[in-house]
Amino acid sequence: MSGYEPERVSTGVTGLDDMLGGGIPKEDILLVSGGPGTGKTIMSLQYIMSAVGRGESCVYISLEESMKKKIEYAKAFGWDIQKAIDDDMLDVLDIYMIPQSKGYVDLYERVRGKLQFTLEKEIENLVNRIDAKHVLLDPLTSILVHEHRSGKKRYIIGQLFDQIRQLGSTAVIVNEGLPKDTDFYMEHFLADGVIMLQKEVVEYKLVKTLMIDKVRGIDFDDQPRRYVITSRGFQVFNTEPVTV
Amino acid sequence: MSGYEPERVSTGVTGLDDMLGGGIPKEDILLVSGGPGTGKTIMSLQYIMSAVGRGESCVYISLEESMKKKIEYAKAFGWDIQKAIDDDMLDVLDIYMIPQSKGYVDLYERVRGKLQFTLEKEIENLVNRIDAKHVLLDPLTSILVHEHRSGKKRYIIGQLFDQIRQLGSTAVIVNEGLPKDTDFYMEHFLADGVIMLQKEVVEYKLVKTLMIDKVRGIDFDDQPRRYVITSRGFQVFNTEPVTV
Amino acid sequence: MSGYEPERVSTGVTGLDDMLGGGIPKEDILLVSGGPGTGKTIMSLQYIMSAVGRGESCVYISLEESMKKKIEYAKAFGWDIQKAIDDDMLDVLDIYMIPQSKGYVDLYERVRGKLQFTLEKEIENLVNRIDAKHVLLDPLTSILVHEHRSGKKRYIIGQLFDQIRQLGSTAVIVNEGLPKDTDFYMEHFLADGVIMLQKEVVEYKLVKTLMIDKVRGIDFDDQPRRYVITSRGFQVFNTEPVTV
Amino acid sequence: MSGYEPERVSTGVTGLDDMLGGGIPKEDILLVSGGPGTGKTIMSLQYIMSAVGRGESCVYISLEESMKKKIEYAKAFGWDIQKAIDDDMLDVLDIYMIPQSKGYVDLYERVRGKLQFTLEKEIENLVNRIDAKHVLLDPLTSILVHEHRSGKKRYIIGQLFDQIRQLGSTAVIVNEGLPKDTDFYMEHFLADGVIMLQKEVVEYKLVKTLMIDKVRGIDFDDQPRRYVITSRGFQVFNTEPVTV
Amino acid sequence: MSGYEPERVSTGVTGLDDMLGGGIPKEDILLVSGGPGTGKTIMSLQYIMSAVGRGESCVYISLEESMKKKIEYAKAFGWDIQKAIDDDMLDVLDIYMIPQSKGYVDLYERVRGKLQFTLEKEIENLVNRIDAKHVLLDPLTSILVHEHRSGKKRYIIGQLFDQIRQLGSTAVIVNEGLPKDTDFYMEHFLADGVIMLQKEVVEYKLVKTLMIDKVRGIDFDDQPRRYVITSRGFQVFNTEPVTV
Amino acid sequence: MSGYEPERVSTGVTGLDDMLGGGIPKEDILLVSGGPGTGKTIMSLQYIMSAVGRGESCVYISLEESMKKKIEYAKAFGWDIQKAIDDDMLDVLDIYMIPQSKGYVDLYERVRGKLQFTLEKEIENLVNRIDAKHVLLDPLTSILVHEHRSGKKRYIIGQLFDQIRQLGSTAVIVNEGLPKDTDFYMEHFLADGVIMLQKEVVEYKLVKTLMIDKVRGIDFDDQPRRYVITSRGFQVFNTEPVTV
Repeated sequence: MSGYEPERVSTGVTGLDDMLGGGIPKEDILLVSGGPGTGKTIMSLQYIMSAVGRGESCVYISLEESMKKKIEYAKAFGWDIQKAIDDDMLDVLDIYMIPQSKGYVDLYERVRGKLQFTLEKEIENLVNRIDAKHVLLDPLTSILVHEHRSGKKRYIIGQLFDQIRQLGSTAVIVNEGLPKDTDFYMEHFLADGVIMLQKEVVEYKLVKTLMIDKVRGIDFDDQPRRYVITSRGFQVFNTEPVTV
Repeated sequence: MSGYEPERVSTGVTGLDDMLGGGIPKEDILLVSGGPGTGKTIMSLQYIMSAVGRGESCVYISLEESMKKKIEYAKAFGWDIQKAIDDDMLDVLDIYMIPQSKGYVDLYERVRGKLQFTLEKEIENLVNRIDAKHVLLDPLTSILVHEHRSGKKRYIIGQLFDQIRQLGSTAVIVNEGLPKDTDFYMEHFLADGVIMLQKEVVEYKLVKTLMIDKVRGIDFDDQPRRYVITSRGFQVFNTEPVTV
Repeated sequence: MSGYEPERVSTGVTGLDDMLGGGIPKEDILLVSGGPGTGKTIMSLQYIMSAVGRGESCVYISLEESMKKKIEYAKAFGWDIQKAIDDDMLDVLDIYMIPQSKGYVDLYERVRGKLQFTLEKEIENLVNRIDAKHVLLDPLTSILVHEHRSGKKRYIIGQLFDQIRQLGSTAVIVNEGLPKDTDFYMEHFLADGVIMLQKEVVEYKLVKTLMIDKVRGIDFDDQPRRYVITSRGFQVFNTEPVTV
Repeated sequence: MSGYEPERVSTGVTGLDDMLGGGIPKEDILLVSGGPGTGKTIMSLQYIMSAVGRGESCVYISLEESMKKKIEYAKAFGWDIQKAIDDDMLDVLDIYMIPQSKGYVDLYERVRGKLQFTLEKEIENLVNRIDAKHVLLDPLTSILVHEHRSGKKRYIIGQLFDQIRQLGSTAVIVNEGLPKDTDFYMEHFLADGVIMLQKEVVEYKLVKTLMIDKVRGIDFDDQPRRYVITSRGFQVFNTEPVTV
Repeated sequence: MSGYEPERVSTGVTGLDDMLGGGIPKEDILLVSGGPGTGKTIMSLQYIMSAVGRGESCVYISLEESMKKKIEYAKAFGWDIQKAIDDDMLDVLDIYMIPQSKGYVDLYERVRGKLQFTLEKEIENLVNRIDAKHVLLDPLTSILVHEHRSGKKRYIIGQLFDQIRQLGSTAVIVNEGLPKDTDFYMEHFLADGVIMLQKEVVEYKLVKTLMIDKVRGIDFDDQPRRYVITSRGFQVFNTEPVTV
Repeated sequence: MSGYEPERVSTGVTGLDDMLGGGIPKEDILLVSGGPGTGKTIMSLQYIMSAVGRGESCVYISLEESMKKKIEYAKAFGWDIQKAIDDDMLDVLDIYMIPQSKGYVDLYERVRGKLQFTLEKEIENLVNRIDAKHVLLDPLTSILVHEHRSGKKRYIIGQLFDQIRQLGSTAVIVNEGLPKDTDFYMEHFLADGVIMLQKEVVEYKLVKTLMIDKVRGIDFDDQPRRYVITSRGFQVFNTEPVTV
């Protein structure tokens, strides 16, 4: 294999990096999809904090959960988000706070779907300000939930991904997804890479598996692998097959 | 594990507290989801009454079943709700009674979705009046049933959770949920913790299992566990695997 | 178990009474749900006729099938409904007859959803006239079929149950329900108790099972049990497990 | 069993009569439901022709297939429908022919859902003219297909069944039904009896079974039974279990 | 079996003729239903070309694929469609070509559902011109795809089938159908006969089966049978059971 | 087999060519359908680059992913797309870029569904300019996503395929398809050939299979076959059965 040897970016999860042959291609948009409680946010924080640890600045678009709470949670894994912010290594856009002041829905209705343009402009400003190498957006669902027409949804996703690609950053985008959803795959088609986290109860045992659904242009381990979340963070057992 | 060591609050169910490593994190919003007859209300009453027993005051937002009936039922478990009310340890907002006087639906239509703001104001007043450490809302479904747009639903849930989080109370919210529902997971994504109660008939035997679907920021036992409801209340068999 | 010891009311079906630990709690609303031909109407008639046999007066709201036919069928089980009516032990509101004179749908459209208020007033009058201890409504479906908005449906059910609860009667409500229906569970959440009747073909054998899905505030046998309908009426095999 | 001993009417199918304990109750409305090619029309013709053979006059409402073709097909089973018509033992309302002249849909739209009233008047006239003991309507689907509101559908079925019940005839109504249809059961709830015909491919073998889903007020064999259609007509193997 | 002995028409497929006891009844409308790549068009061409071989003229209504391509494909099976056209044994109405000139959709919208009347008139003219014994229409789907109301769809199919029946021709109608479609069976109920072609992957092996779903008025082999398509055309293995 | 011996075109994938008996028929429209990460784009690029390698010019309609990225990815397989463009062997219409300047959705709405006519004109110009023997369009989904009416969708697909067929080129069209989609098969019916790529997790092992669903007019291997994607590109194991 020659010619295309994309520079890799660590996901912060060693086993996952191994599955990817070193990490995700630089400047890719990676979707992390899964149901509630699968650890999407933890995996994405691990990605950001490992980047900060390597001295690479990041922009975090937090759309739904209070950043204050996330900062607290992160301590359990030994991640000091506040310090990263104070050191100007991490810039947070905490959109979660908007509803309290003037109402997100009304805002949405007033701008008639043009909210994402503002969001994209905002992301661009933040990225430029600290020369961010990484963008984390959590969750994508929050932007799409007011739009029911699938053509429009695809357009919103396409626009957002397109703008992010212009910035030269690598991006991880958290996606609340369930295998049964009809629109589940739309964002999967549009992203460069997709990681799926799944919780399944088999004979009254919970089984948690991670599978790389796709990454454009590189070889990767496409088999499902077990994972756990401990005080050391997100861990993937990539060298052994899944058994029940 | 260091840094984040959230103060824990007992759920009132010993086995469940053990699964959670001591209880739910203080000031979390915990969703208790399940079908009819799974014991959601009993579990939530047990949570409240154990708090009252520890001398912590509570606010109970009762949306659908008559409080009078619940007070009766609770006696079977040795819980004296009336006494807790009389002692000013429990304050009840019995919204169930509204329909009789002026009609809930008409009210809803008149205020055009702004009912929840009033509800949130009301909760705040009650919490402040008795300095409540806990809020119990049963069921969430009652607030969402008139709204069909999923974006709006998400907004209503987000607003409610947000307001409750401002109060500094820990909250248990009962959710009428069935595994097949499309919108089943929306509230799961937005809550801090989710406990799922499930009844399933396997080869003509009923199997009742509890599973902690997620709790942000802490380790917990994520395996399904059997539970029973007896005169001693809700009981979880957390030390043994489920067998059929 | 102390404190709450609700007075019990016989369902008229011995095996079912045993499963309930003596009968349903007095003044409860019990839903009997099942597909066509599962015996919902027979079980509900057995409930009424056993009450009449104990000298307790009843009100029967018959919404869809001609009362004349039911009176005929009931003879096969040795139940003399006409005599109960003549003795003023049973008062029947035969709403089935309305469509023939002026048209139920037109009526419905004219009163714009307020039909149920009239129905509730009517039930109240009948209950008061003969001081009825029991109310039987068959089927609930008939009231809900013109309403498609689930919020409104929930409101109609809530209003009806609420009014019945004011009367101090115990009620059995027949519900045409299929396990696959999305709205199947709405009435289950709102009722105090739910009994589910199911017919299932397993390897070309028909298996009929009854399961108590919930009864608020009491212990009960929650396992599925076989049942038959013979000339002696509805019979439940509650002491043996179901086998195929 | 005493009191209710309804007079029975032969279905024309010996095995089925045996399953019913002698036939269907007189003046009942029996629904024959099944997918295409299950033999609904053949069973209903056998019902009519056996009645004619016993000297009982019948009315046949043929809604979709040309009567001319049915008369031809019936010869294969030795049934001379034309002779029955000529002898005034059978009166046919061949609604199939209407579309050719002026258009059924346009007619439907002009009368805005009141077509069924006309149909019911027509049935009444025919029944009275030849003092018919039996009514056969094939298929019910044809009347319901233009109506999408389930409340209205239920009303149309209710009205039709109600009118037929006034006539004092026994009725067989053919229903194009598939187990998966949502509305499949509405007519099942409203009819007095339901017979279901099913074709199923199991391991590349076709299995045809008949099951009596319900008959109000009588005992019957409720197990699935195999059936065949030969030159002697519809035949049910009611004394042996179904095996594959 | 006596009385009804319909004249038979060969389907052109020997094994299928055997399953039908000699062929389909003359003047019947036979539906050939199946998913993409099941061979519906090949089977229908084989029907037409065998008729031409017996000296019976045919009309071919080609709605979607270019006739030029079909003429090419047919050569692989040794069928010279062009010669049949040149000999005036086959008349083709190539509706596929219309969209190129003026737009089929616009046309449809302009005539507001009356397109089928024109089509029926056209079919009648062609049949009369060459005194056609057979009509082939491929596919029915093309006529129905612009209509969403199921009542109207049923009417369009009914009208078309009715007009074809007036012509005294035997007809084969190709239907793009998948077992999961809700409306899948509507045309099955209305046709005289239905042949279903199915492709199924079982343990990573493709299994192709043909089943006669119904033919009114005659006995037939109703079991699923394997089939293949080779250079000799469509071939059915009707004497052996299907195994995997 | 004689008469029809269509000239074949290599798919660029040896195993697939073997399954097709040499390649796809010249001037056919071949649909490549599959979920995200199945390798549709890689297979279609392999098709184009092998054609370029044989000295046959191609037109590439790239609708959603940036061409720049694809050019990078292709290097991993040793394919120099840029050189093909520079040598005038490949002409690319990069529609992906349009949204950035003026907005694809607005454009779509302005031209009200007539976008595809422009697209078809554009394709024609490109094909004529370099006398292209092959057209690649990736993905079809992008054109259909704004249209919800299935009749209109079918028309758009029909028009597009029709125009491409006029050009005398062979075409590969990438289709984002999932087996569960209702409209999944519409484009399958309209294309000349369909190749389906599927990823399936069986007992926690990923299994990737290719199946030729149909190719009009030729014999082909219709069994599912395993495939892999390595640095040598898309490879099909067509000589061995699939095992798990």
